[in-house]
Amino acid sequence: MSEIIYSGVQMKAVIPYKKASAKSRLSPVLTKEEREEFVELMLNQVIDTLKKAGIETIDILSPSMYGLEDMTRANVVLDKNDLNEALNRYLELAEEPVMIVMADLPLLSPDHVKGITSTKEDVCIVPGKGGGTNILFIKNPSGYRVKYYGSSFLTHCSIAEKTGQNVEIYDSFLAGTDIDEPEDLVELLIHGRGTAKEYISKKFRLDTSRGRVRLTPV
Amino acid sequence: MSEIIYSGVQMKAVIPYKKASAKSRLSPVLTKEEREEFVELMLNQVIDTLKKAGIETIDILSPSMYGLEDMTRANVVLDKNDLNEALNRYLELAEEPVMIVMADLPLLSPDHVKGITSTKEDVCIVPGKGGGTNILFIKNPSGYRVKYYGSSFLTHCSIAEKTGQNVEIYDSFLAGTDIDEPEDLVELLIHGRGTAKEYISKKFRLDTSRGRVRLTPV
Repeated sequence: MSEIIYSGVQMKAVIPYKKASAKSRLSPVLTKEEREEFVELMLNQVIDTLKKAGIETIDILSPSMYGLEDMTRANVVLDKNDLNEALNRYLELAEEPVMIVMADLPLLSPDHVKGITSTKEDVCIVPGKGGGTNILFIKNPSGYRVKYYGSSFLTHCSIAEKTGQNVEIYDSFLAGTDIDEPEDLVELLIHGRGTAKEYISKKFRLDTSRGRVRLTPV
Repeated sequence: MSEIIYSGVQMKAVIPYKKASAKSRLSPVLTKEEREEFVELMLNQVIDTLKKAGIETIDILSPSMYGLEDMTRANVVLDKNDLNEALNRYLELAEEPVMIVMADLPLLSPDHVKGITSTKEDVCIVPGKGGGTNILFIKNPSGYRVKYYGSSFLTHCSIAEKTGQNVEIYDSFLAGTDIDEPEDLVELLIHGRGTAKEYISKKFRLDTSRGRVRLTPV
């Protein structure tokens, strides 16, 4: 048994996930079918990472069973409400610390997870690109509410402040790289490993001709 | 005296810098004059950060004196050769560990600098967005050569490997954020502080209407 114990209390992870027509901002470079295959690969890598970090209770929070019919490696929690409503209901019912992990973090490693869950503060936030929140670890979930979308990183810092909870900002390029836009696939090709990277490297190679590296079809 | 001592040997930092027509990829949102003002603010913030980390020898490597006429806070080293040639000549002549720090890292903190320079490996690399190299700390500079542009992060890892030098990859969202493109200014507004942030916040505010946060004029 290698359950992650925080302050004597077990914790759990929840991964919001929706496969149907996922990742529309990748539609300039991947078809709908490809995007759906790709998000499933990323989800499975995130589950692997959490398991390797010793987290045993992993819930996938989804508005539909689509793509999760055969999921045996994590629990599926169905909630047809929007992301924030569903997560806030989940937090309200949780009796142990909760780590909310986005499903599009294929560069996340078990060491990141261990670093985040060993925070001394009440809340640990991993900022994503463009103001997003990639991971949110909350020790007292019933005393916290989330508000994703927009500049959620700043919002989540301010929610913690208003409710008297101290925040650690976890500074990581790799955990901070959520895969939402074509340029993010470049980071996956450069810094990644595993099936999500292999899937993308069969379709694209790096174009290093000017400025930042871009994608070009294989 | 708070000189940074590495293994009993003093180290120095070098910042490649060119003010004239700087940051052309920011030209969709800033004029040439604004870009030149802005890079000077970023340069001064990087110098502040290095000084606060205890680094006393700071060289600015530039192809021209333009914008550096009154520089008293760091040494100016003129070299009209291209970036790689100038840096490799600099490394060849260096007798102590060298940290090459890009001038466009306003989110870099003294703690990052201390973390990077205390690496146990021969070389420590801070990857930037899109395959770039934001910081390169080299303990044996005469045995290393740089090759910036393109996917320089992978190139610099491979140069270390080929010359038998071990590499630490320093994983930081903040140190990994180089300011090259309009979307990078969003990170400066969200995570930054100091004069570079103030300059940008007078011109733009955050647009949180969809997906990642974007810029919109004030």
